[in-house]
Amino acid sequence: MDSHISPVQLEKAYRLINHGPTVLVSARHDGTDNVMSAAWACGLDFDPPKLTVVLDKSTRTRSLIEQSGAFVIQVPTAAQLQLTQALGTTSMFDAPDKLERFGARLFQIDGHDLPFVAGCSAWLACRLISEPHNQQTYDLFIGEVVAAWADSRAFKDGRWHFERADPAWRSLHHVAGGHYYAIGEALSARDVEQG
Amino acid sequence: MDSHISPVQLEKAYRLINHGPTVLVSARHDGTDNVMSAAWACGLDFDPPKLTVVLDKSTRTRSLIEQSGAFVIQVPTAAQLQLTQALGTTSMFDAPDKLERFGARLFQIDGHDLPFVAGCSAWLACRLISEPHNQQTYDLFIGEVVAAWADSRAFKDGRWHFERADPAWRSLHHVAGGHYYAIGEALSARDVEQG
Repeated sequence: MDSHISPVQLEKAYRLINHGPTVLVSARHDGTDNVMSAAWACGLDFDPPKLTVVLDKSTRTRSLIEQSGAFVIQVPTAAQLQLTQALGTTSMFDAPDKLERFGARLFQIDGHDLPFVAGCSAWLACRLISEPHNQQTYDLFIGEVVAAWADSRAFKDGRWHFERADPAWRSLHHVAGGHYYAIGEALSARDVEQG
Repeated sequence: MDSHISPVQLEKAYRLINHGPTVLVSARHDGTDNVMSAAWACGLDFDPPKLTVVLDKSTRTRSLIEQSGAFVIQVPTAAQLQLTQALGTTSMFDAPDKLERFGARLFQIDGHDLPFVAGCSAWLACRLISEPHNQQTYDLFIGEVVAAWADSRAFKDGRWHFERADPAWRSLHHVAGGHYYAIGEALSARDVEQG
């Protein structure tokens, strides 16, 4: 594992996706690994941390998750713009060599039988909380975050550091049709008078 | 209604929140209007457009939505940083004058008996899709977007224009504890070879 990758405390794991980045969703079942992009991933709870992600029935990653009950949500970087777009627009059903073709590199983390995408800024290993009605009716999946890590060049001491990191580390925020915004300037609100 | 506010086609309404901004959630019931901030709002479907939003049981806005079956998701701007923080950290249960105290201005849109927050960049009027299990177990609410509008100085012709709009129009993306990032640079991916 890259020496820059450090565990993130579970109670701070929500911060990895709280700013609404487009994510990569990866899963493994029975010898098959796959990765897809998803703009619709979102925090759901703090403790234990949970999140939601929308997975269309046409995706191979969804079926892997339904079979394995586990997945990884990871935060791709501006340097991975093209990879993120490619993984989100090409299905493994159409291109079985999708990961190789687009240069997605996977790595392992001890204790987790899951495929992690190299080069991302953060990773959240999730256990599927089975909710068949949501999955069938809305394509909506709920995961409990069981472990999290971040690259210390982008996220350290429980905080993102986009403002001082290399711009290549910025998160991606998809709008439509391959048009993204990178995350921008840090803004801090003043304490609110509760008096 | 401000002359800059224009309807957004329903099939493009998802684009208003696809980049993951922190939003303001407003609702009205029986003469009471309220507004709260929420970082956990997310697209769920394109057609008809649907979205999810997480509403804690401690919030007044949640109870208004449960009673009225309707709400507005709106996208606040960098100019509204302090308002967004205040509306997200102070409950109407503790401060009945919360909207006046923090200077939240509401306006009306014909045909919708809902409170819209002035100064935002986009508004999505939603009908609650009742899912009691999700609401009770996860604080997770699903809405169908029935109409949408945007301020043409920030979103026009189906696209955000943060890259050429005044920086005050940038969306806010909360991380934790009053620390936000504004949305940043536009990045466009190349078309992906499907061959």
